[in-house]
Amino acid sequence: MRAVAVTPGVAGSVEIVDVATPEPGDGEVLIRTTRVGICGTDLEIAAAEYGQAPEGEPLLILGHEAIGEVATLGPGVHGLRPGDWVVSSVRRPCPHDSCEPCRRNSNDMCVTGNFVERGIGGAHGFNAEYFVENERWLTQIPAELADVGVLLEPLSVVEKALRHTDAIQSRLPWRLESAAVLGAGAIGLLGAALLRLRNVDTYVANRTDSDSLKGRLIREIGATHINLSDARLEGAMSSSGGFDLVLEATGYTPLIFDAIQTLSLNGVICLLGVSGGSRNIEFDSDMFNQSMVLGNRTMFGSVNAHMEDFRSGVEDLGQIEARWPGWLSSLLNRPVPIDRGLEAFDRDREDIKVTVEYG
Amino acid sequence: MRAVAVTPGVAGSVEIVDVATPEPGDGEVLIRTTRVGICGTDLEIAAAEYGQAPEGEPLLILGHEAIGEVATLGPGVHGLRPGDWVVSSVRRPCPHDSCEPCRRNSNDMCVTGNFVERGIGGAHGFNAEYFVENERWLTQIPAELADVGVLLEPLSVVEKALRHTDAIQSRLPWRLESAAVLGAGAIGLLGAALLRLRNVDTYVANRTDSDSLKGRLIREIGATHINLSDARLEGAMSSSGGFDLVLEATGYTPLIFDAIQTLSLNGVICLLGVSGGSRNIEFDSDMFNQSMVLGNRTMFGSVNAHMEDFRSGVEDLGQIEARWPGWLSSLLNRPVPIDRGLEAFDRDREDIKVTVEYG
Repeated sequence: MRAVAVTPGVAGSVEIVDVATPEPGDGEVLIRTTRVGICGTDLEIAAAEYGQAPEGEPLLILGHEAIGEVATLGPGVHGLRPGDWVVSSVRRPCPHDSCEPCRRNSNDMCVTGNFVERGIGGAHGFNAEYFVENERWLTQIPAELADVGVLLEPLSVVEKALRHTDAIQSRLPWRLESAAVLGAGAIGLLGAALLRLRNVDTYVANRTDSDSLKGRLIREIGATHINLSDARLEGAMSSSGGFDLVLEATGYTPLIFDAIQTLSLNGVICLLGVSGGSRNIEFDSDMFNQSMVLGNRTMFGSVNAHMEDFRSGVEDLGQIEARWPGWLSSLLNRPVPIDRGLEAFDRDREDIKVTVEYG
Repeated sequence: MRAVAVTPGVAGSVEIVDVATPEPGDGEVLIRTTRVGICGTDLEIAAAEYGQAPEGEPLLILGHEAIGEVATLGPGVHGLRPGDWVVSSVRRPCPHDSCEPCRRNSNDMCVTGNFVERGIGGAHGFNAEYFVENERWLTQIPAELADVGVLLEPLSVVEKALRHTDAIQSRLPWRLESAAVLGAGAIGLLGAALLRLRNVDTYVANRTDSDSLKGRLIREIGATHINLSDARLEGAMSSSGGFDLVLEATGYTPLIFDAIQTLSLNGVICLLGVSGGSRNIEFDSDMFNQSMVLGNRTMFGSVNAHMEDFRSGVEDLGQIEARWPGWLSSLLNRPVPIDRGLEAFDRDREDIKVTVEYG
């Protein structure tokens, strides 16, 4: 079968390879992939910033955002049938008895760091004609959402972010009434859609024109677009009275410290974006600290997602599709057939979710 | 009666004044003050950094950490009797219907900022022979703890910090096994004692010698002293394997960013210290962001306390006294009689909790 793979550590080594089709073991199913999403992580692995092949193998099959159809069942599979549409989660528990999160189904919160992640570190991914996975890590998707199901993995990241925000804020009387989302990639736009499902007054800030596709998608869900090339975040704040929540999804880290100043009292900033590098900035640490302490404010980082975030994500995909029909499909704005699969690794400013299509 | 007051906005205007003894109204009691704690906030008001007199008055009576004995009851007081020992909370609810926290007994989380704080902004404090307060804001203390009851208000701040930490972390499988406390003033030492009551492996970092009073008090409760003049926080981390919690109680804000690097995965840093100024630092915002995101880490600020933190504080004062008899009294290491009351506003490096004694 064809697969998109890299030689980890070798920049620009992405290639389409021909490998053996895997066979499902106990509790596993073979999935025929239809569509795979490409994200910043894939590009960074392709640029050799990180990434690790399975032990003893030279290549890593990429891909951690995929949708496919169950092709065949291994022995002992109870919850799935051939033809079911499924999405797999990414991170697998570490082996250590001492890791309570991994032992209690919260491998997204692993404390040893010795997890493997499919398509990222230590295990092959899903960017291939077929992949095999234990049914435990699969979430079933209704057939009518199969076309947009490739968005479930990035959606799960913001599902977790909002679930954690709710949990963190349950310690006080608090209502999420206004929010800013920094970044209008797939994570940012999906986060904005979740906020709009809750009727939160939502601002999405990025650096594209308002009449760009991203600008239009932001308005279609009733959110307000802020072009950060023209305006600073503080401008939006003054009209909203302060944000109860900021979702940072750019990875452009100096923005974090501007954003703190736009939070309302008791506000929360959730950091989701990561940039691999190093960036020295100068800033006023006393002012930052005063904002945090005197405002009872919270900043938290969030990575990966729990299986429950995949389940709630399926619900929310359905709700987004019902409320704004076609909007989710519009995010898949650069489909690339596997025949030309390497083009998916070029970057374009207008890309939202580039996909490799296995048809 | 004698009282310690300032003219807000005039640095160095602290004076001992003679004012009328207040009279208790409906639901209020008159309290005969025995001891008042002085903290950084008092010194900053004395230095005219902030502070506000009650509307229309030239002077502000200072004091927001006090213990006293109920002298007389106003009409309609049901829960207290003359001779009861009480400590008052500091912040009063704002008047706005829209402020859910204030309307729901969480004035420590006020979202309008239009609260008053006794002895700080908009209302007289407790640094006087007598003060009046509604019984709603008073917490009763057993007579055997009256001597150390002046510590209840600073203790309530760390009670809140730990209660919020527990609430924030209840979203994941988490155990608080190791902690660092930055700063060995009253807040830092009381925080360390609360952690040691829970048998948390506790490190307290400051800039005094290990054989100083502070160093000895830290060891007496089974915590480890780190002299930051000799060692960096990372040194302590390498022996502890990373801190589950850091309590920042110095207000020296560059430490925050060193401390992040010492947190274990899923760790929390709680900011309690405030410094009034402005301080430009240079730091690596990408590295900070990576630590936060990839480690699912949380930073939150916390100010003031809920009445429930005063109630749990009374319990914990009793437990600290039972486990380490005399330790709490040792924190009150510079009592100043009201006759020489202004001396309480001098600073000394070895001060822990300076008190004005009304005898």
